Amino acid sequence: MRKQKIVILGAGYGGLMTATRLQKTVGANEADIVLVNKNEYHYETTWLHEASAGTLHHDRVRYDIKTVIDQNKVDFIKDTAVEVKTDEKKVILENGEIDYDYLVVALGGESETFGIKGLKEYAFSIVNVNSARQIREHIEYQFATYNTEEDKKDERLTIVVGGAGFTGIEFLGELGNRIPELCREYDVDFNKVKIICVEAAPMVLPGFDPELVEYAVSHLEKKGVEFRIGTAIKECTTEGIIVGKGEEEVEEIKAGTVIWAAGVRGNSLIEKSGFEAMRGRVKVQPDLRVPGHDNIFIIGDCSLIINEEINRPYPPTAQIAMQQGETCTRNLVSLIRNKTELETFKPDIKGTVCSLGEDDAIGVAFGKKMVGSKASFMKKMVDNRALYMIGGPSLVLKKGKFNIL
Amino acid sequence: MRKQKIVILGAGYGGLMTATRLQKTVGANEADIVLVNKNEYHYETTWLHEASAGTLHHDRVRYDIKTVIDQNKVDFIKDTAVEVKTDEKKVILENGEIDYDYLVVALGGESETFGIKGLKEYAFSIVNVNSARQIREHIEYQFATYNTEEDKKDERLTIVVGGAGFTGIEFLGELGNRIPELCREYDVDFNKVKIICVEAAPMVLPGFDPELVEYAVSHLEKKGVEFRIGTAIKECTTEGIIVGKGEEEVEEIKAGTVIWAAGVRGNSLIEKSGFEAMRGRVKVQPDLRVPGHDNIFIIGDCSLIINEEINRPYPPTAQIAMQQGETCTRNLVSLIRNKTELETFKPDIKGTVCSLGEDDAIGVAFGKKMVGSKASFMKKMVDNRALYMIGGPSLVLKKGKFNIL
Repeated sequence: MRKQKIVILGAGYGGLMTATRLQKTVGANEADIVLVNKNEYHYETTWLHEASAGTLHHDRVRYDIKTVIDQNKVDFIKDTAVEVKTDEKKVILENGEIDYDYLVVALGGESETFGIKGLKEYAFSIVNVNSARQIREHIEYQFATYNTEEDKKDERLTIVVGGAGFTGIEFLGELGNRIPELCREYDVDFNKVKIICVEAAPMVLPGFDPELVEYAVSHLEKKGVEFRIGTAIKECTTEGIIVGKGEEEVEEIKAGTVIWAAGVRGNSLIEKSGFEAMRGRVKVQPDLRVPGHDNIFIIGDCSLIINEEINRPYPPTAQIAMQQGETCTRNLVSLIRNKTELETFKPDIKGTVCSLGEDDAIGVAFGKKMVGSKASFMKKMVDNRALYMIGGPSLVLKKGKFNIL
Repeated sequence: MRKQKIVILGAGYGGLMTATRLQKTVGANEADIVLVNKNEYHYETTWLHEASAGTLHHDRVRYDIKTVIDQNKVDFIKDTAVEVKTDEKKVILENGEIDYDYLVVALGGESETFGIKGLKEYAFSIVNVNSARQIREHIEYQFATYNTEEDKKDERLTIVVGGAGFTGIEFLGELGNRIPELCREYDVDFNKVKIICVEAAPMVLPGFDPELVEYAVSHLEKKGVEFRIGTAIKECTTEGIIVGKGEEEVEEIKAGTVIWAAGVRGNSLIEKSGFEAMRGRVKVQPDLRVPGHDNIFIIGDCSLIINEEINRPYPPTAQIAMQQGETCTRNLVSLIRNKTELETFKPDIKGTVCSLGEDDAIGVAFGKKMVGSKASFMKKMVDNRALYMIGGPSLVLKKGKFNIL
C-alpha cells in the first residue's frame, strides 16, 4: 500500500500545531508529512502589535520552524502557496507544485480594506513580521525627521489607528508606552504628539464586557489617545485620512502615520482555488473539512465556524486555531488509518485577555473578569502557553515573556 | 569701571573651549561671559558619521552644555544667532537680542551644495544630531520596507555617498560595519546592497599620504564599497542621482539614500552680518580677530587661516578650532586687562587619523604613518582627548570611547 501524503499549508498557530501533533502520532511508515510556509520562521501573530510599536524586537516574536519540527518526520518546504487544484490533488506554489492525498489549509488571513479608497496604498497593516518592523521604522522616521525641518510639521507626530477592535486597542496600549520613549529619543515635545483612534462602529472592543471596555478606554485616554467612535474613514491619502459621520460630514485628519487595524479576511488562495467562501473564509463541516472535499481541512483564519449561542462566527483567534489543529490531527490520523468516524470540533474558549501595554490589560479568564497587572500577568501566561503547546518548555524558555511584575 | 561683556556664539569645539578656558581665567568681577547656542547640548561633530550610520547612539555623541560650564561664571542662553549688528555691538537672536563688548563667533559650518540641482531637497547631510539620526532612520526604513513590497526595489538598498573626503570616507567605514547588521535585522540579502561613493575630484582623501589612501580604498572595497572617482553628481532626484564624467556622459544611479558629504562652508550668519568672506569663512588676522573689527573674534568653521607651507587654507577641523579657542581666550583676557599685545595663532597639527569603521583606521600622528588597529586606537584617543580638553576626566569617563582592542 502506498504511503499517504499529508500536506500542510502555513506554519501559523493552526498549521504548526497540526505538524507538531502529527509528528508525535503518525508512524514514519504511515504517512509523509510536508509543511509548506513562505518564511522559514513562525511568528506570533498575536504579538505583532508589540513589534509594530517597537516595544518588543521582531526577533522575539518569531522562531525558526526547524526548532519545533522533527525533520525525520516532517519535510519543510519554504515556498508560498498560490492555488489549490482540487481536481488534480495538487497545490501550485510560487516556485513549483506539490501533490497531496490530504491537505490542511492553515494559511493566515489578510487585511480587509472594504474598498476604502487609498487604504491599501497609504495605510500600514499589522499583518506579519515584515509589516510590523516597517511600521516601527516608519514611526521612528517621522520622529527623527521632525526636528530636521525648519518648518515643523506637527502632523508627522500624529498616528491614526483605524479600528478599535482587539488589534487596534492592543497596538494603542503599546504606543502608550512607546511614545514617551520616542519623545526622549528624538527631543520631541510629548504635547505635540497625537494618537487618534477612529472607529466606524459605535463602540470599542465589541463583544467585550462594558465595564472592562470602560477601563480600557479611560486607561488609553490617560496615555493620550483620542477616540473618535462612530466615525468612518472615507479615504486615506498621502496626507492622512478623511473621515465622516454618517454620509455627509467630512473632516481631514492630517497624519504622518495611518495604521489600518479594522479588518481581516481569509487568505486570497481560498477564492483563487474556487472554494465557496465569505471574505476568504470557508464555512467548514463540524469535522473541519471543506464541504464536498473529503480530503481537505481548513483551519485557522480561513475557516469559518458559527458560535451557535449568538449565531455569529467565532473571531479568528490563535486559541481556536490551535484547538482546530488538535482536532484536525486526530481526524487526519483516523482517515489514514481508515476509520470513518471523525471528531466534531468544539471551541473551548478559556478566556480572552486584551493587553493595554506593558503592565496593564483587561480580560475574562475562567469566567472571571480582571484588569490591571493581574490581567497583564494572565496575558503573558496566555502568550507563553501558545509557545508551550507548539514547542514545549524549551521554546517557552527561549521566547517566553518573563517580564512579570 | 563697567564690567566688560564677552558673548560667545556657538558651543562647538571652539566656542566651548573658549567658554571653559575663560571661566577658569577670568575673575567674576572682570567680565560677564555669555554663551549662546541653539541646543542645550554640545555634540561631537567628528563623531556624527557614527550616529548617522547607526553604529553609535546619538546620545553618545552629545552632552549637556551645563555639565561643563561653571554657571556662576558663564550665562547660557539657548537661542539661535541670526545676525551680528557690528555698528550697534549686538547680536540678533531668533528670540531676542544681546549686547556685547567682545564677541566670539564660533558657529559651525553648513553643508555646501555648490548649486547642484536637487541636493538640498533630496540628499541628506551629516551636519548635526538631528540630521544624523534622520539618516540612520532613513536607511533603516529603506531596509524595513524592502521585504514588504511584492515588487522588490533593489535600489532601496543602494546608498550613494557623495564625496570621498574625510567625512565621506569615515561614514563609508561605519557603513561597512553597519550594513551586515541591517541585513540580519531585516532579512535582506547582503548581495543586494550597493554602496557607491561618487567623487568629482580625481582622488580619494586629497592631501593624505597615497599609501594610506590605497589602504583605505582597498579596505572599503573589501567591505563592498564601489568607488566612482572623477565622477561628478550633476543632479539629485527623488530616485537617486545623475552623474557625468566631463561635460556630456550621463548616467542615472538609482538609490534610496543619497548622502552629500562633499562640501562645507561657513555659517550663513557671516554673510548676513556683512563680514567679507569666502563661502562663509572670514580670513581672520593672526590674532583671530576680524579685520576692521577689533572686538570680534572668529574661530572654527567660519574662520579661514592659510597654511603658508602649501599656500592653501587649513581645513576646518576640531583640532584647530580647539587650539583657536585657547588662543582666543588668552587674547580676550589681554584685551579686558588692557594689554595691547595679542598672541598670534599657530596651528600645531599633532596628526590626522581617518577612521575606517570600528577597528580600523589610517593616519599620521607625531610624524608617523599608521594603519589598522593601531591607528584605530589612536583615533579613539584623539576623540577622548577632545572630551578631556573641554570637560576633564569626568567627561571622558562619561562619554569616552573605551572599546579598545
